[in-house]
Amino acid sequence: MGREETELLTRTGPGTPMGELFRRYWIPALLAEELPCADCAPLRLRLLGENLVAFRDTNDRIALVDENCPHRGASLFFGRNEECGLRCVYHGWKFDVDGNCVDMPSEPPESRFKEKIKLKSYPARELGGMIWTYMGRPESMPGLTELEWAQVPDSHRYISRRLQECNYLQAMEGGLDSSHVSFLHRDAAHVSEKTAGSVLRGKGKGREFVQGDTSPKFEVREVEYGLLIGARRNADDDNYYWRISQWLMPWYTLIPPYGETPLRGHAWVPVDDEHCWVYNFSWHPARPLTREEITEMHAGGFHFEMTQGTNRPTQNKENNYLIDRDLQKSGISFTGIKGLAIQDLALQESMGSIYDRTKEHLGTSDMAIISARRRLIKAAQELQQGSAPPGLDSTSHRVRAVSLLLPKGVPFHEGAKEAMMAQPGTFFVSA
Amino acid sequence: MGREETELLTRTGPGTPMGELFRRYWIPALLAEELPCADCAPLRLRLLGENLVAFRDTNDRIALVDENCPHRGASLFFGRNEECGLRCVYHGWKFDVDGNCVDMPSEPPESRFKEKIKLKSYPARELGGMIWTYMGRPESMPGLTELEWAQVPDSHRYISRRLQECNYLQAMEGGLDSSHVSFLHRDAAHVSEKTAGSVLRGKGKGREFVQGDTSPKFEVREVEYGLLIGARRNADDDNYYWRISQWLMPWYTLIPPYGETPLRGHAWVPVDDEHCWVYNFSWHPARPLTREEITEMHAGGFHFEMTQGTNRPTQNKENNYLIDRDLQKSGISFTGIKGLAIQDLALQESMGSIYDRTKEHLGTSDMAIISARRRLIKAAQELQQGSAPPGLDSTSHRVRAVSLLLPKGVPFHEGAKEAMMAQPGTFFVSA
Amino acid sequence: MGREETELLTRTGPGTPMGELFRRYWIPALLAEELPCADCAPLRLRLLGENLVAFRDTNDRIALVDENCPHRGASLFFGRNEECGLRCVYHGWKFDVDGNCVDMPSEPPESRFKEKIKLKSYPARELGGMIWTYMGRPESMPGLTELEWAQVPDSHRYISRRLQECNYLQAMEGGLDSSHVSFLHRDAAHVSEKTAGSVLRGKGKGREFVQGDTSPKFEVREVEYGLLIGARRNADDDNYYWRISQWLMPWYTLIPPYGETPLRGHAWVPVDDEHCWVYNFSWHPARPLTREEITEMHAGGFHFEMTQGTNRPTQNKENNYLIDRDLQKSGISFTGIKGLAIQDLALQESMGSIYDRTKEHLGTSDMAIISARRRLIKAAQELQQGSAPPGLDSTSHRVRAVSLLLPKGVPFHEGAKEAMMAQPGTFFVSA
Repeated sequence: MGREETELLTRTGPGTPMGELFRRYWIPALLAEELPCADCAPLRLRLLGENLVAFRDTNDRIALVDENCPHRGASLFFGRNEECGLRCVYHGWKFDVDGNCVDMPSEPPESRFKEKIKLKSYPARELGGMIWTYMGRPESMPGLTELEWAQVPDSHRYISRRLQECNYLQAMEGGLDSSHVSFLHRDAAHVSEKTAGSVLRGKGKGREFVQGDTSPKFEVREVEYGLLIGARRNADDDNYYWRISQWLMPWYTLIPPYGETPLRGHAWVPVDDEHCWVYNFSWHPARPLTREEITEMHAGGFHFEMTQGTNRPTQNKENNYLIDRDLQKSGISFTGIKGLAIQDLALQESMGSIYDRTKEHLGTSDMAIISARRRLIKAAQELQQGSAPPGLDSTSHRVRAVSLLLPKGVPFHEGAKEAMMAQPGTFFVSA
Repeated sequence: MGREETELLTRTGPGTPMGELFRRYWIPALLAEELPCADCAPLRLRLLGENLVAFRDTNDRIALVDENCPHRGASLFFGRNEECGLRCVYHGWKFDVDGNCVDMPSEPPESRFKEKIKLKSYPARELGGMIWTYMGRPESMPGLTELEWAQVPDSHRYISRRLQECNYLQAMEGGLDSSHVSFLHRDAAHVSEKTAGSVLRGKGKGREFVQGDTSPKFEVREVEYGLLIGARRNADDDNYYWRISQWLMPWYTLIPPYGETPLRGHAWVPVDDEHCWVYNFSWHPARPLTREEITEMHAGGFHFEMTQGTNRPTQNKENNYLIDRDLQKSGISFTGIKGLAIQDLALQESMGSIYDRTKEHLGTSDMAIISARRRLIKAAQELQQGSAPPGLDSTSHRVRAVSLLLPKGVPFHEGAKEAMMAQPGTFFVSA
Repeated sequence: MGREETELLTRTGPGTPMGELFRRYWIPALLAEELPCADCAPLRLRLLGENLVAFRDTNDRIALVDENCPHRGASLFFGRNEECGLRCVYHGWKFDVDGNCVDMPSEPPESRFKEKIKLKSYPARELGGMIWTYMGRPESMPGLTELEWAQVPDSHRYISRRLQECNYLQAMEGGLDSSHVSFLHRDAAHVSEKTAGSVLRGKGKGREFVQGDTSPKFEVREVEYGLLIGARRNADDDNYYWRISQWLMPWYTLIPPYGETPLRGHAWVPVDDEHCWVYNFSWHPARPLTREEITEMHAGGFHFEMTQGTNRPTQNKENNYLIDRDLQKSGISFTGIKGLAIQDLALQESMGSIYDRTKEHLGTSDMAIISARRRLIKAAQELQQGSAPPGLDSTSHRVRAVSLLLPKGVPFHEGAKEAMMAQPGTFFVSA
């Protein structure tokens, strides 16, 4: 990939082609629990290179506004979340969730100056335990997502958010890259046997197929919402083992489960060009998650420990992700790094803040990555020429990743058609 | 304000128009106690983007010199403060307070090389518990300031110095902005009732007027030394309550007291364009400060705790100034941030390193800020054209900020004329 | 020196003239003990602005390779050091010490993609307790060095490596500058009298001559391998006291001993343009080092304590090298900074990351520095025009620094000729 395409893909600030594209979609922003109640303390949040403050007003309406007061620029993070509005503590200007200046006590009562003042404000909605925002032009606002995890009851879902110190693209490419599971996450099969582990490992034969065939054949199909990615491995004489995942525009990836394990997925959202938010979601369409499942996911199976009061994992770049060389040497762990999510974090951050893709050498296992990049570039360019982006029809989001055996000769997207349909309440047992 | 004017106002390094203007005034540099005795250890000091070292020689003469030795650039901070000179420990070159190289033992005794070597040195004077320097061209050096706090006996004065992590201008604008007192510092009235508090709160009715009328009318008058700023609030049928403060070129602000409380003021001096020194001074013209007054000021009323061995407050950007959201929520404190000085620090730093003033929306309460900016720009431009800067006549510095009731119809600068005259030994009781 | 020459001398990344010159010499890279055994954990190493990873394979072959995997850029620091190769844990690509991709399990077995993949790899050799690398074009690779310390038995040698936070040139100039010893390291004579000290102080009269004559006359002679530097001091009526050191292209300096003390020297190698590696070596050509000698060198005489797991001294820039102002004031220590090596570190780093040499004022004591700069510039420019660099003939490295009395009138390079010849097993007792 050339330098120009890398720039196009990795720059997401206001006014950049990719930034403009991303602003046409609803963006997962905060866990709903981070703004726990009406009139709670405001939070800082950086998204797509913009510094924002989030608050929940007296009527439970949620706001995402510019961090800096339009008066003299003081941070509204220090503001008072008062009756139906956030008040800047510098001179008392108060703003409602729509950014209207509803009180300006530093000016004379007769002044109409406040009518001219508008705080930048983005619409925010709560759905599926997540707070969503839309940062594009109002007239193009699409419907909220219908991703399955956002539709199931709260008890069926576990979500988290963490900061990753690299560009969103190289993080998302990890989510598109089914091939690395056989290596980076090889542990899951071995280590977890000794601990709980059954949650993510499942009981099917899928793990065996993955370990047995480390160079799956990839088939990537363009679909309305993004990409459908099939990874084919040898199973037996008559069947292939297929792991089928989706990439949904512009940053969602879904992970095929093993057996009856909960479903999982990610969103990879730019904080700015050198950092991204990774949202992790796990859910079961048909039943509450068990305490055992939540415990294991929290303990690093999928989620992980963070430094108190931050979104930064305690295993991080400065401490080499607490790599244990003896464990790595012993072969008990392939990487010596504990936790699936931290393994991804370590390798993706190790590529540098914004990986220089003129140096890469892509193989056949990187087909999905190549396709997603093309799709993003194409969508950004077409948007510049006035075409609406793909994947805005939220009904198209009703999909699930699956793994299953299919007879040789059956095209994966046909054989798995029904299994891939997201219907909360139903469940397909993967292989 | 446009980008060009912002640049002009905020850039103060050598050769910049504002930097050249500032170099025509005496600059408060260090507390005298920071160089406690003859031949004490040298100190590092950064001023207007220049790295300096300060030392006090055997004869109590004070020097401010370039940090780096003219030989090979080693830092003179590590130097030995010897008999009437600072000796670089790298090769033994020794310099007196005027920057003359008085010993060069690394060269042969007959060498005259040292006569060609000159260490950059700025004149330094001690006055009012402060060490002052002058960084402009020698032939334009004005007389030392006659600000009142620098004239009173040491027992009548309390001064401190702290580092602020933003441009000097947005810090100084806080000092020019009487309006924010009704909001950011609203605490002083409430919180301090329960603690000592009487020192800054005073016993007059001034606090009530300030809380009762949050949108004072401003009148700003250009005077020889800078600006005279009157903030008018409603008092009773016949009188206005006036709070009158001065801004003295190029960076001094004075604060009107309440009742018999000590007088106070600030100097806002660039460290470089992203940092400034804030010098705080409190004084009583007619009597020593009491232990109670000093204690309260030290405890955050006006001064505050700093990390040992630094000039950085322990409440700072990294810890969100230890904001207490419960206290803020309760209404006991408007901000939840303890200490008047830290409240200013928090809000001013939250505007960013150098606030982008193309984004601001100034109201009538910002009149003094607008006037001071204009005055600075004008002075810098006129200096470029050869005109001497205003405010260099130190007798013009003999002014005090006051608060008082004046009959309606009486112009504030006339009604307060006598009260504003600084005459050490006398005292005017403010409202 | 002008800005252009400073740039030429201080920039050493790939493609720079000085960087190209340096890449024609073997480079000391790691202590052999840092890769203690076959298949041990890989290490990160930055050299001349390039991020590398070092590992020792199953057959004890050492590799220095690009840190980032050519596939998708993951860091090979996290790699597994397996049977005769380092395996990237992201997708399992495995590389041998020559950078060949010997396994690519993410691609189908029949794929020949791996034959097209080459990991950048530099030759590495172990000699004298040090791992050396060569980063230039293969056809110009010279023979390994014959510096004496690298030829003696391990028991006769003590080496260490530390990080210095400034450009290599100002660090190396300290090693070229015999003059600073009379000042910066004046301590060694006084302080160490009270502690062990005898190791570096020696028993000869050399120290007295050095303290007694602080402005030696320098004579610098160009020789094949670099420079021969004589510093002449007055001794008695008939003799001069000569301290003779060598600078060997492109970054080695040797230190004249006192009496029977071990010999010492340095290599000053760029990490990048703002950091350098300082390699310290001490050796005795004719006998093992004693426990007392090693203890004293380790305790700061020559080597020093580093923060666990790093190459950074515990006395560093952030803590002002733990300068003790009382000790400095008392005169017991000239600098108040403990340890010869840390004294150098402090002063050299205090010049800034890359010292701006347009500000320096060089005297007669800086003659060796001037000569070495000229030599480096000339060599870099001639290399650009196709001439081979000087000092590549490793037999020319067989030299020793010495100090001795010579009758007035005897040219130093002739009078010291035999004493300067490095012949492991023999020893010349310096003055």
